[in-house]
Amino acid sequence: MGTTIRIDGDRLWNSLMELARIGATPAGGVDRQALTELDGRARALFSGWCRDVGCVMRVDPIGNLIARRPGRDDGLPAAMMGSHIDSQPTGGKFDGAYGVMAGLEVLRTLHAAGIETERPIEVVVWTNEEGARFAPSMMGSQVYAGLMDLDETLAIRDAEGVSVGEALARIGARGEPDPHGRPAAYFEAHIEQGPILEAREKTIGVVSGGQGQCWFQMTLKGRASHAGTTPMDLRSDALVGAAAVIGALNRIGRAHPPGCATSGRMLVSPNSPNVIPDSVYLTAEIRHPDDGVRAAMEAEFRAEVDAAAKANGLDVNLAKVLEQPAAPFDPACIAAVRQAARRNGYPCMDIISGAAHDAVALSRIVPTGMIFVPCAGGISHNELESAKPEDLAAGCQVLAEAVLACARVLDAEAA
Amino acid sequence: MGTTIRIDGDRLWNSLMELARIGATPAGGVDRQALTELDGRARALFSGWCRDVGCVMRVDPIGNLIARRPGRDDGLPAAMMGSHIDSQPTGGKFDGAYGVMAGLEVLRTLHAAGIETERPIEVVVWTNEEGARFAPSMMGSQVYAGLMDLDETLAIRDAEGVSVGEALARIGARGEPDPHGRPAAYFEAHIEQGPILEAREKTIGVVSGGQGQCWFQMTLKGRASHAGTTPMDLRSDALVGAAAVIGALNRIGRAHPPGCATSGRMLVSPNSPNVIPDSVYLTAEIRHPDDGVRAAMEAEFRAEVDAAAKANGLDVNLAKVLEQPAAPFDPACIAAVRQAARRNGYPCMDIISGAAHDAVALSRIVPTGMIFVPCAGGISHNELESAKPEDLAAGCQVLAEAVLACARVLDAEAA
Repeated sequence: MGTTIRIDGDRLWNSLMELARIGATPAGGVDRQALTELDGRARALFSGWCRDVGCVMRVDPIGNLIARRPGRDDGLPAAMMGSHIDSQPTGGKFDGAYGVMAGLEVLRTLHAAGIETERPIEVVVWTNEEGARFAPSMMGSQVYAGLMDLDETLAIRDAEGVSVGEALARIGARGEPDPHGRPAAYFEAHIEQGPILEAREKTIGVVSGGQGQCWFQMTLKGRASHAGTTPMDLRSDALVGAAAVIGALNRIGRAHPPGCATSGRMLVSPNSPNVIPDSVYLTAEIRHPDDGVRAAMEAEFRAEVDAAAKANGLDVNLAKVLEQPAAPFDPACIAAVRQAARRNGYPCMDIISGAAHDAVALSRIVPTGMIFVPCAGGISHNELESAKPEDLAAGCQVLAEAVLACARVLDAEAA
Repeated sequence: MGTTIRIDGDRLWNSLMELARIGATPAGGVDRQALTELDGRARALFSGWCRDVGCVMRVDPIGNLIARRPGRDDGLPAAMMGSHIDSQPTGGKFDGAYGVMAGLEVLRTLHAAGIETERPIEVVVWTNEEGARFAPSMMGSQVYAGLMDLDETLAIRDAEGVSVGEALARIGARGEPDPHGRPAAYFEAHIEQGPILEAREKTIGVVSGGQGQCWFQMTLKGRASHAGTTPMDLRSDALVGAAAVIGALNRIGRAHPPGCATSGRMLVSPNSPNVIPDSVYLTAEIRHPDDGVRAAMEAEFRAEVDAAAKANGLDVNLAKVLEQPAAPFDPACIAAVRQAARRNGYPCMDIISGAAHDAVALSRIVPTGMIFVPCAGGISHNELESAKPEDLAAGCQVLAEAVLACARVLDAEAA
């Protein structure tokens, strides 16, 4: 390919910091939940910046906001970048915003250098990736990819009873059906939101796909009784059973790298120091990039739950509440990311996306690639979230080169 | 001894049912918390019944209400019975009330038969055994036994800011220092509040003493992170550590019968399904009738806590918040209970008092014995608490004979 364009790391950083003012929290984070007035202001800021570099803006029926830079053959499927600018209630400056500002930086770089591409290039702000105000998460990208029904999604309401459709209308983000077809490829840059790149001292994570996951809720029911008067062999202790489940789940996760297995939420009843617990509610989730291995982990988990119930005389109600298959990314997109990282000499490694992202939804319908950069301590969904300007710049440079490989640069000066 | 007196099981049952009307709840239980107006009404009912059979009533400075039936040698230390008539907010008809009504039934039986004893006989209503309104529990018996300071206890306040002293005065239960010395012995009948007698099909539990206990509170601190992006080997999962502690505590309890070891209360933070928990608060208690064994259990427990913390990269804050040594009862009192049970052909067994009782406080200063009778399913501190009339009558008969063995019957007719 051989393009020599260089993105401007300082300009990228400044855009991130300016965007982070909208919904800035005293602790240095961002509270800019989906389809709020703050989200509307952030969308307007982004739209203005994109128009300044010659883009045409459009909004689709679920509020996805798309900046389009025409290609020489504008009927070709676009090379698409994107992420989201909504945040958690106590979110950080980089989660999502980085991918959008990196896309903007690619547009600015192309514009400043006067580079023309064969395909159009698009940068998308996906509606409500976080799912904090309206559940579920990845709403805009799932509707776009046909994974959620538009009308049902528009009818979803927040805690105050406001529907997605109403909230879209209030900020002027309820648009028209997209006149363009599917893009040729989709690339998303994102902070890792995990500790692996930092621990391994890598600048670029070449994301090979999203792991599959299944979530469970269970209730273990025993018998409440006095902790001082009930002999150990006459107990039905729901907490002891739950502890066995948690321990087993952790062992199952450790036995199947790079899979994860976690209990995050637990409620004990009656939760009094000297009463044997009669009921425990517990969540469990199992993730693995290989769906076959994940199914085996689930089978082991179910057997351990049964064994813990039997050993402690408990009734179990175990329900699977979510199942998402693994989402392997496109080999050509993965290769484009890896090659760009290597070409620039950035330390890189292949990595699985542990969290879900808009890119995972997009990967169901178009060739998709993702670029991770480190964030400090792996901390995210937290006002303390931070990332280094040089890492963010490196990720943006990789994004630019991967996208240009897809869009095909035509200007001789840049070749 | 050879006395042939027989208590009247129907009269005992009717007294229990009449007392249970004071504070009766719609669900069939009792809400008659300490030093409330309802407690005052129950005390007045008891006092009237005792005066009807020739007793003199007195109240001590912490409100313990004592019925005294004179002995022929009234200067001798008394043979004392007792329990409590305060209840939990959602208490049952039998917890405490049974021991007091059984003592009353003994007084009535002696009175009806015209039996004279060498020692005086006393039946005590101990103030605030439950500790529901004013903490701690066993307040009256602990002050009586010198285990709590009177003035400090009078200053303890309830949730509305009313002090024990004020509450005593409101119901006319703030009395004078007791003119009599320590009793010769103390006997208390009580429902077991556990499942052992029912499971073993025994009518009488010959209580050999109160087990010792120690209570702990601990906080395990790890690191919150994303359940999908944090590899298993980079986690500090406080819930996995807590689960290991709970499992170990249960194994320690099972390995040292008849000891008990229990975690009853647990709070997980942030308690979100896909966030690795960074903090768990957990209670633990260890009970055993042998203080040496209990100390060994505690040492094992502490080692397991340290091991769980180390294995999961957690910081631990472990505090012992209560320690009570075991309270072995008096061999002669225990023998008197066992002999009375056998004499009547009641199926009986030796049993440890798993819960604390006024008798445990009394045992620190005078020879003490206790009689347990079964309660359905071991359920107590519950409006569903129930016991069979025939078991209650049997326990009362044993109480009568054990007390008379101490008080020495002098009337030839009863000999």
